[in-house]
Amino acid sequence: MELDWVKRFEEGHAGEKHLLGGKGANLAEMTRVGLPVPPGFTITTQACRAYFEEDSRLPKGLMDQVNDALKDVEAAQDKGFGDAANPLLVSVRSGSVNSMPGMMDTILNVGLNDLTVEGLARLTNNPRFAYDCYRRLVQMFGNVVFGIDGMQFERLLHDLKRSIAIERDSEISAESWQTLIEQYKVLIKRQARIEFPQKVQDQLTMAVESVFRSWDNPRAKVYRKVHQIPDIQGTAVNIQAMVFGNRGEDCGTGVVFTRDPSTGEKVLYGEFLTNAQGEDVVAGSRTPRAIKELEDEMPEVFRQLTETAERLEMHYKDMQDIEFTVELGKLYILQTRGGKRSAQAAMKIGVDLVAEGVLAPAEAVRRVDASHLDQLLHPTIHSDADLHVLAVGLPASPGAASGLAVFDADTAEEWAQAGRRVVLVRAETTPEDIHGVLAAEGVLTSRGGMTSHAAVVARGMGKPCVCGCEVLRIDTELGTLSVGDIVVRQGDSVTIDGSTGRVILGTVPLREAEMTAELRQLLSWADEIRTLKVLANADNPEDARKAREFGAEGIGLCRTEHMFLLPERLPIVQSMILADTLEGRMEALSKLLPMQRNDFAGLFRAMDGLPVSIRLLDPPLHEFLPNLEELKQRLEQVGRAEGGSGSSSASAGVAVVDTQTDTRPELERLIRKVKSLHEVNPMLGQRGCRLGILYPEIYEMQVEAVFLAVKDGLQEGLQVIPEIMIPLVGHVNELKLLREMVDHTAARILNEDTAQCAYKVGTMIEVPRAALTAGQIAEYADFFSFGTNDLTQMTYGYSRDDAEGKFLTAYVDRKVLEHNPFQVLDRDGVGQLIDWAVVKGRAVKPALKTGVCGEHGGDRQSIGFCHEAGLDYVSCSPFRILLARIAAAQAKLEADEKV
Amino acid sequence: MELDWVKRFEEGHAGEKHLLGGKGANLAEMTRVGLPVPPGFTITTQACRAYFEEDSRLPKGLMDQVNDALKDVEAAQDKGFGDAANPLLVSVRSGSVNSMPGMMDTILNVGLNDLTVEGLARLTNNPRFAYDCYRRLVQMFGNVVFGIDGMQFERLLHDLKRSIAIERDSEISAESWQTLIEQYKVLIKRQARIEFPQKVQDQLTMAVESVFRSWDNPRAKVYRKVHQIPDIQGTAVNIQAMVFGNRGEDCGTGVVFTRDPSTGEKVLYGEFLTNAQGEDVVAGSRTPRAIKELEDEMPEVFRQLTETAERLEMHYKDMQDIEFTVELGKLYILQTRGGKRSAQAAMKIGVDLVAEGVLAPAEAVRRVDASHLDQLLHPTIHSDADLHVLAVGLPASPGAASGLAVFDADTAEEWAQAGRRVVLVRAETTPEDIHGVLAAEGVLTSRGGMTSHAAVVARGMGKPCVCGCEVLRIDTELGTLSVGDIVVRQGDSVTIDGSTGRVILGTVPLREAEMTAELRQLLSWADEIRTLKVLANADNPEDARKAREFGAEGIGLCRTEHMFLLPERLPIVQSMILADTLEGRMEALSKLLPMQRNDFAGLFRAMDGLPVSIRLLDPPLHEFLPNLEELKQRLEQVGRAEGGSGSSSASAGVAVVDTQTDTRPELERLIRKVKSLHEVNPMLGQRGCRLGILYPEIYEMQVEAVFLAVKDGLQEGLQVIPEIMIPLVGHVNELKLLREMVDHTAARILNEDTAQCAYKVGTMIEVPRAALTAGQIAEYADFFSFGTNDLTQMTYGYSRDDAEGKFLTAYVDRKVLEHNPFQVLDRDGVGQLIDWAVVKGRAVKPALKTGVCGEHGGDRQSIGFCHEAGLDYVSCSPFRILLARIAAAQAKLEADEKV
Repeated sequence: MELDWVKRFEEGHAGEKHLLGGKGANLAEMTRVGLPVPPGFTITTQACRAYFEEDSRLPKGLMDQVNDALKDVEAAQDKGFGDAANPLLVSVRSGSVNSMPGMMDTILNVGLNDLTVEGLARLTNNPRFAYDCYRRLVQMFGNVVFGIDGMQFERLLHDLKRSIAIERDSEISAESWQTLIEQYKVLIKRQARIEFPQKVQDQLTMAVESVFRSWDNPRAKVYRKVHQIPDIQGTAVNIQAMVFGNRGEDCGTGVVFTRDPSTGEKVLYGEFLTNAQGEDVVAGSRTPRAIKELEDEMPEVFRQLTETAERLEMHYKDMQDIEFTVELGKLYILQTRGGKRSAQAAMKIGVDLVAEGVLAPAEAVRRVDASHLDQLLHPTIHSDADLHVLAVGLPASPGAASGLAVFDADTAEEWAQAGRRVVLVRAETTPEDIHGVLAAEGVLTSRGGMTSHAAVVARGMGKPCVCGCEVLRIDTELGTLSVGDIVVRQGDSVTIDGSTGRVILGTVPLREAEMTAELRQLLSWADEIRTLKVLANADNPEDARKAREFGAEGIGLCRTEHMFLLPERLPIVQSMILADTLEGRMEALSKLLPMQRNDFAGLFRAMDGLPVSIRLLDPPLHEFLPNLEELKQRLEQVGRAEGGSGSSSASAGVAVVDTQTDTRPELERLIRKVKSLHEVNPMLGQRGCRLGILYPEIYEMQVEAVFLAVKDGLQEGLQVIPEIMIPLVGHVNELKLLREMVDHTAARILNEDTAQCAYKVGTMIEVPRAALTAGQIAEYADFFSFGTNDLTQMTYGYSRDDAEGKFLTAYVDRKVLEHNPFQVLDRDGVGQLIDWAVVKGRAVKPALKTGVCGEHGGDRQSIGFCHEAGLDYVSCSPFRILLARIAAAQAKLEADEKV
Repeated sequence: MELDWVKRFEEGHAGEKHLLGGKGANLAEMTRVGLPVPPGFTITTQACRAYFEEDSRLPKGLMDQVNDALKDVEAAQDKGFGDAANPLLVSVRSGSVNSMPGMMDTILNVGLNDLTVEGLARLTNNPRFAYDCYRRLVQMFGNVVFGIDGMQFERLLHDLKRSIAIERDSEISAESWQTLIEQYKVLIKRQARIEFPQKVQDQLTMAVESVFRSWDNPRAKVYRKVHQIPDIQGTAVNIQAMVFGNRGEDCGTGVVFTRDPSTGEKVLYGEFLTNAQGEDVVAGSRTPRAIKELEDEMPEVFRQLTETAERLEMHYKDMQDIEFTVELGKLYILQTRGGKRSAQAAMKIGVDLVAEGVLAPAEAVRRVDASHLDQLLHPTIHSDADLHVLAVGLPASPGAASGLAVFDADTAEEWAQAGRRVVLVRAETTPEDIHGVLAAEGVLTSRGGMTSHAAVVARGMGKPCVCGCEVLRIDTELGTLSVGDIVVRQGDSVTIDGSTGRVILGTVPLREAEMTAELRQLLSWADEIRTLKVLANADNPEDARKAREFGAEGIGLCRTEHMFLLPERLPIVQSMILADTLEGRMEALSKLLPMQRNDFAGLFRAMDGLPVSIRLLDPPLHEFLPNLEELKQRLEQVGRAEGGSGSSSASAGVAVVDTQTDTRPELERLIRKVKSLHEVNPMLGQRGCRLGILYPEIYEMQVEAVFLAVKDGLQEGLQVIPEIMIPLVGHVNELKLLREMVDHTAARILNEDTAQCAYKVGTMIEVPRAALTAGQIAEYADFFSFGTNDLTQMTYGYSRDDAEGKFLTAYVDRKVLEHNPFQVLDRDGVGQLIDWAVVKGRAVKPALKTGVCGEHGGDRQSIGFCHEAGLDYVSCSPFRILLARIAAAQAKLEADEKV
């Protein structure tokens, strides 16, 4: 039995994209709902696959079916294909399953030859138009079918115009076009050693075959590789009667959106040109007119268009982007698709469509696009025009910021206090720069990856950050940043875009973040749908308050080390680390205790009635000390100062040395300590609960501070729900030991208040072994918080610092990995560990609370996994809360659909 | 119903250790088989537990049962407890389930008081003996029951001896003993405010209670903690009639082994003293006589002893260590246990017992002790006497070595070529020191852990190594090694013991490794039993030959990077890394190709007919470059030389600079490259197959070399079975890509020889994700080789370099972890991943070959796991092959027992 290679528009529908391609399915759908679509039919993708399977031969029976279908088009248009008196012209267009804009070929005006062109001239009474059409066909054919460089045709056209001293194509006469057509024919003959086909049947066959072939042209192949479109898919071919917007003043062409794509307002929005074809609108040689003016010009067409727009929107239940053509006063719809829109417009359209009864609220929520939320919630660059992009680094913390470049933290703080907006520029940041980060609008570094100090701190503060921008040469001493010949000095303006990684010269207008009424509405619908709770990662009361405003249902992760990094505390923390005895450490800890107590009390106040999960100290201690390189430099300076002045007293030496802190013995002691704490692989070293077991006094101080703050909170009449989270547990005995300490300390401090505070003790699951032995660990844990950043590092064996920007980038580029697993949670590996841990943990303790607190907690796809895995919550940065609320609802809707 | 707190010796047996303790069960067993054991009974561990449960009160009915049992002892001995005319004396000894030597208390001679002592004097006609016995009882009672410091009794004894001018206890008269006894009584009264009990019943009760209490004394508690003996277990108490070897010349005491414990020869071996008690033998105040002399002295006793020894050996089916006492010509056996023996003796005894029909071969194999094999296979220090131990570092590679200390690799090589034995001493080693390691007898470093360069290289070469010995101050420039005041200079002798980590001053006699006929016999029995294959980790033909001699059934891991480190190749490898272009890399690789081809050909020759698994390049590239610190120093030297001489030409400057290699631009280029390759966590960075994907030309060269060598081998008529192993795969796509490359290269090179070479392609499973997704990976793998070193690192999140000697040591000390997971494979975590991967892998590919090639492949317990997990093989260093063959057989026997 012969296959159906061809489907007429009236036989197909939108669901047949795989067979008809996107464009074909769309044309069929529009035809089906009765819109004025020029008649035509589609050669299926199956035919294309057959073509390639049969060594690039058109499948048997294909052209017979094409001709049958073409007869119907002739009948519909009352014209004949190749009929010299009344010729039918058709377009032959590619149309793949996934959109591949501009990658494949199209030929228009097929059906014209030396005879039919005269017929068209007579029929339209417009020889200039007819010969122009013919000229276009010959040019496209030469280029697409015979592979002749398009520039050669353009040069002939250019010569012609010069010879007749005419600038605009529209002024060229029919005779001149005829001359050009003859020149084109000669060019084809000479280059392709074949005559331009005069038989319209040959034209059609060659055009179809050439569209098939264009599936395998180099740019299409690259595009498919980049967008992971299977090579085997093939393209459909759409053959459709030509309509012309350039046959006179009762003709025209245009594009309309059914709503305003920047504001979302419900008005017909778009532009049109009379007596023109689509490419004239694109070329920009004539300025199109606002669609409103069409009402005066062609009131009936405008009425039809308005009605059609309404119908299409109702049909597709979304704002549409419609291409139309008017031929001799008759409206044709050539294409419709979901219209691109601004973030603001997207929210408004979603909410309005619900109000209009077109969409259910759930559907509006389902359609919210994560990238739109990102745009709404961070300042963005107002327009991409006229940007002087110096370099592109890693997009480490989203949002854009402009300010004066400063090269050290002290200046940043000073200038900011003087009311200037600054961008802190460093080769890399250390904990000692934190006041500079705080003062700056954003941070730019030349070294370090997505988890470098700068990146982590900036994300935590919601400040834009571009890091690891290695092409920049940053000279901190000179206070310059240079790339190529361009030098930015201290005080020059720069802009960074932390969402794209761009570093831009000068100040750029920004669009501020805003929380619209529509967004609030969508969020409230999302909250009704979702089952996954959304908590915040917040380390201080201010972030906690902000998170609560954004709808956080508690704090899922408070990283207490961030409290250690505050400038007034760091010296105390350092003295704790440098102490050689328990007594020395205890003394420093006793100074930190009231500070931490105060921190926690603030968090409890901000989160009154909601849980606050406090993770005990996690990073290796050397992170709180200056780095070795820097210390050695300081020691050298001391040496030079001593040598220069002949004594160690302050004098007018060459190098200015802070004699208060930088004494030789002090520096040497520091260097010894930094060396002794040095680790080959700090990621896998002495950190997390390993610290808590080796130096129990540190964790004890922290737990004591938590429960003292609980007492403070209870006294203020707050409802306090503290959770103590033990990081980096890999063996049940670690948790067992530390849980005993927590319970013991809690009992000691709370005393008679014990009944009023139902605290929890749990653990991060971030070491693969913890997930594997979750059944044992659950015995001692009230909750599991999956630290998916570290879990991903260890499950893959990737150091994020070393992988991102290096081999991981290459892996994603070459499709070894589908996604960067630090951005999108890896279901097969990491996800399997999470599933296992949840199942084993709940088997032992059914009430076990589970959640994700890594950066995946703010990623849409990963939130989908969390919902499916049956987790109780995700916890993310305050700035991701809104996205997480939407994504959690979307995950629920998606999961329900699957059932 | 009342419990049975007491069991008579004749009622128990060896299987009741839990109830009767080790000693009690043993006494019961000996009684049961009819040996002449002094009569007695055991108070069970249950009674001890009840004692502690009831707040340290003797359980109800206990003393009644004791007295009943005591009546039987009285009857057997025909004496009365407390009978002034014919007194029975008893010993009251502790006896726990697990041996806790000397940790708990014992009281002898219970039953003596002011009256019975006179009876004993009369009965034995030996007042001196009787009062000495009484004096001992009072002294022990004072010390053990009343807790009076033993020194106070010793001082009184000392004063007495001085006052009567006598030196030896045996010369003290009955009267003097009586005086001392009165002084002891006064001491007790004064210190304990209680009289020494004259009622023998009170003595017994107090003695029992005091032994119970000694279960909880501080040293016993510490001992239990260290040896993981549960606190709840409790001790048994053995009450037994006293027998005396010191009642005259027809009395005596001694110890015999049923075979010679150093050679294993079947002769009665031991010593005895006439007219003496056990403690006299221990005290060494009299020199014991060889057991042979007993034959002349007491022929009947000797005959009985010989017969008893024979019976005991037959009964326990093992060489016995027997304590005996002769009282008035009658032989009593006090204790028997498995005798400690040398490694050589252990092997001989095992094999002899099989020959004698006592043991089955499997049982002889089951009893082989891993530590004995270690001793046999590495040179060991002949005797621990007179060692001047300077320091103890990490035992990084087993065996001992003596030699002259040298502080750089070149000198090591030079001196070794001149025939001197040297020990290479470095702060740490780098690939550039490798010729020094090769030349040296052993390696000593002050920095670096069990996986440091020195450790890994030394283990690979089977050379002793002590590393990370941080108390040593090593000054390479001066050529000194110092610790405290002691300075070892170049050319001074040192000895290292890589099995214990000891660093010893001077030369020490060593016992060389030897392969005895008995060991060969045991190994051949083991081979018949085991199902697990044993392969070798070998990187060169010499190691491969050695491994084959030791019985390796192929090479399970050839680390090709070791081939890159050879001194003549390292510069080429470095130039490959430093090349900025593909062409540059290809040029260097083309030089390496013939060398690698030659390496592989040598391996195939050595392993003719056996599989050779070749792992492609694994370590990060920066490991092949000098470290940054060193380069900076060299750059500084160049700077000084330039400054000093005013030009860069060679001159008599301060620092000697190798102007051939150390030019400023060259060094600066090196420094840039080293910096660009620097990684924060190199363990999780750009290594393994990540290198192979980023720089395909490196792996392609290696695979090409393998298959060229295959062709060479085929031409020589060898049977070549190559396996290509891709390291660090974490995602199936990595293996898929690289397997395609291997198959493609193999086809290209082998060509018409393809049919003759059934090569395999497989992967290391060393990243947790690889184990988790083993089902996917197995599609492209012919074998899985579990790299348990890295798998342990990532599953636990431990960097071995940072953990060992640091927190991991603390974890094991504090019992957070039972074992160092790098030494003994972690069943719960890492083991679970292996089990999972084997199951999932075989489900997809039933013929999948699986094995372990980490260091666990040479560890007894871990080999047990490998057998249970159903792996096909283990692969270990050549020096562990013999142990692995035995361990694999033991694992099989153990597993069969469980079924």
